[in-house]
Amino acid sequence: MSEGELLKKAEKPSEEAMRLHPFYRGKIQTAPRCAVRSVNDFAVWYTPGVAAACRAIHANRDLVYDLTCKWNTVAVVTDGTRVLGLGNIGPEAGMPVMEGKALIFKFLGGVDAIPICLDTADPDEFIKTVKYLQPSFGGVNLEDIEQPKCFYVLERLRSEMTIPVWHDDQQGTAAVTLAGMINAAKIVDKKLADMRIALIGAGAANICVARMLMAAGVRPGNIVMTDSKGTLHQDRDDIEKSREKFKEKWEMCLRTNGDRVKGGIAEAMKGADAVVALAQPGPGVIKKEWVRFMAHDPIVFACANPVPEIWPWEAKEAGARVVATGRSDFPNQVNNSLGFPGIFRGVLDTRAVTITDEMCVAAAETLAGFVESKGALREEYVLPTMEEWEVYPLEAAAVGRKAVEQGVARVNLTHEELLRRAKAVIADSRNMMRLLMDEGIVPPWPEA
Amino acid sequence: MSEGELLKKAEKPSEEAMRLHPFYRGKIQTAPRCAVRSVNDFAVWYTPGVAAACRAIHANRDLVYDLTCKWNTVAVVTDGTRVLGLGNIGPEAGMPVMEGKALIFKFLGGVDAIPICLDTADPDEFIKTVKYLQPSFGGVNLEDIEQPKCFYVLERLRSEMTIPVWHDDQQGTAAVTLAGMINAAKIVDKKLADMRIALIGAGAANICVARMLMAAGVRPGNIVMTDSKGTLHQDRDDIEKSREKFKEKWEMCLRTNGDRVKGGIAEAMKGADAVVALAQPGPGVIKKEWVRFMAHDPIVFACANPVPEIWPWEAKEAGARVVATGRSDFPNQVNNSLGFPGIFRGVLDTRAVTITDEMCVAAAETLAGFVESKGALREEYVLPTMEEWEVYPLEAAAVGRKAVEQGVARVNLTHEELLRRAKAVIADSRNMMRLLMDEGIVPPWPEA
Repeated sequence: MSEGELLKKAEKPSEEAMRLHPFYRGKIQTAPRCAVRSVNDFAVWYTPGVAAACRAIHANRDLVYDLTCKWNTVAVVTDGTRVLGLGNIGPEAGMPVMEGKALIFKFLGGVDAIPICLDTADPDEFIKTVKYLQPSFGGVNLEDIEQPKCFYVLERLRSEMTIPVWHDDQQGTAAVTLAGMINAAKIVDKKLADMRIALIGAGAANICVARMLMAAGVRPGNIVMTDSKGTLHQDRDDIEKSREKFKEKWEMCLRTNGDRVKGGIAEAMKGADAVVALAQPGPGVIKKEWVRFMAHDPIVFACANPVPEIWPWEAKEAGARVVATGRSDFPNQVNNSLGFPGIFRGVLDTRAVTITDEMCVAAAETLAGFVESKGALREEYVLPTMEEWEVYPLEAAAVGRKAVEQGVARVNLTHEELLRRAKAVIADSRNMMRLLMDEGIVPPWPEA
Repeated sequence: MSEGELLKKAEKPSEEAMRLHPFYRGKIQTAPRCAVRSVNDFAVWYTPGVAAACRAIHANRDLVYDLTCKWNTVAVVTDGTRVLGLGNIGPEAGMPVMEGKALIFKFLGGVDAIPICLDTADPDEFIKTVKYLQPSFGGVNLEDIEQPKCFYVLERLRSEMTIPVWHDDQQGTAAVTLAGMINAAKIVDKKLADMRIALIGAGAANICVARMLMAAGVRPGNIVMTDSKGTLHQDRDDIEKSREKFKEKWEMCLRTNGDRVKGGIAEAMKGADAVVALAQPGPGVIKKEWVRFMAHDPIVFACANPVPEIWPWEAKEAGARVVATGRSDFPNQVNNSLGFPGIFRGVLDTRAVTITDEMCVAAAETLAGFVESKGALREEYVLPTMEEWEVYPLEAAAVGRKAVEQGVARVNLTHEELLRRAKAVIADSRNMMRLLMDEGIVPPWPEA
């Protein structure tokens, strides 16, 4: 396909979206979880019977997990300040994304997720509000919040809430990126501990990728990050000046780039074994010649959407062995949807109080191991696709077990139990979709 | 049945609730509203396609009603400060009720309701939080909030939000009570405008009942209310002293009780055509002899749960013509579930900005008219039951039309259109329940 054709193809989902969003008027709805044989059953589910459940929870608050839907319910929360690549478009305009996320949570992870777009851009008000929401939810998925606010919000909510809080643009992206990198390293027969990795873009996502790579064994000094002004290093006075506001970025200046490489993307990539770009839509953000000056068998993850920082064929022409992008129409899609549904499944099933980096690494290793164990690992297939739904229960079980091992789980289940539960819940979820479509309650996809 | 047997029967739903709540682990879940034929469709529902819907809403915020589930989604919000008759048991313990409400919203009204129990008892924090939630919801159902906070919260939210806000313990209870009273008056052949009505209990519910009765034609001076200290009148210094805090109650002192009846429940009921008790569980709160001293053909609504202020047979023995309670095991259940599902259906379908008292009166008249038009009106049948699901679309259409007439609707639909839509949405909802049960996704009701 030519570049023009590819761009046209990239436009297709937008056109379809504007045809189909008004047709379906939303992507999720509520459904009963309990049987209602007749309205008489409401005497059990509502007054007067329900009072017994209320009293039981009043006497022992933990019973809210056993007697209500809290155990499986996640709030997908945004303030709409950085929706996709669209910037600060506000909470209403964030709704289609949060709803889409909720749909994927259900379909792939069997998780009941509720889109909540908050009408405040003030971080402290945002934090307070999410804390007030705690009684009804088993977890919080933060989404599309601008930097550096997102770090502050995540950090405070993680430390002040008793349910797990996760920022998918940080931990979710990082976990899936790490999975791809683990398998890419196998293909080029390198060890993470020896690899030099250039990270292009120093936004929330890539800062978390750096942290997650380190948690998986990459040496901090072997990472060179860049932002729009060049590589991060200890002499970046501009970042030091705003280090209170951008403390995570300043920390990267101090911890990474052991050789104090100065310059731009070209210099960061020179001699690197791998590059992960989460910077800005390309093409041309990464040049072919820069790939040529990487180490032998270079790995190129160019993940900007809708157009990667360098077209995959250009990277290949320049010698890249493994190329990944954010797009579903190229091989090796680094897709957040491989992470959050399975990770939250495991988190919810063990009632984990938090989601540690180690739990994310366990998820990444499971994703990577799944491909390898199928005997499918090759340059063009370092990550599973969403179609391979067997990977989600495996991911859930691995994450759940790691939570138990780390002492952050409130329920101790074996790997086998976790796997069985996750399979059952996810199967129900997919059966529900099929059923609702078969019976026309969800109307058929209208032809264009 | 003896009193002992009745009390035992009243215990049954509690026992069942404690068996079934842990079995089902919640009453609602999420379900897809749009078709997902394969994971490839996520390119439309999520990135990259979804960005087009986001951009469209950013350009025209009203499109959030057309492109997301906001149009049909209601937040069921409490702070857990007055859950059923259990008092301030906290937000977690309020969850079973809010979830039950969400189930009924869906089953009877086709409304997607989300239980949200807020972890703050501060009214201003509560108000701020509900306002922040506005972008994702088409309406707010407040529930189980203590008096007098509930008045303040409702008033401020109604004036400061652009989506309709409703307090079911006020407007919902009042609308259904009014419906019953309209039909009871027909039976005894009296006109609301001529009737003297005693209201026992001056909590949020009965204060709203008073307001709604007035909106339907009852003369303020002909209403005599009581609280725990006696009848309300202009000389109640104790209430006047706290009139800033209890301003609605003080207003009742000024507006009602034209004859300045002093004393207690007995005096309030003396010569009254009807009594509505929303006070405290009986029996014995209302005595038989007090019913005897009412006007001819007395109407007795004794609505405390689980045990009415006077047993229905006692009221009958004392000469009551029409008796209603809050219980499903006696005739004439004054049941909130006859109100909110249909009322919100009409409110959402017309995108009404508020729910006026007149809209509630329209709902009440529809409920009452439904019974009469079936030719079923009799002493033991002044209100429909939840089984008569045809009443909900009628109620929705009447409420919707009233919203249009009053200029509070954002969408102008005819009665016929409203009826057709309501029928379709509610039918889908009930079909969904049946399907999920038939296919075992909602497991069968376990035998005891």
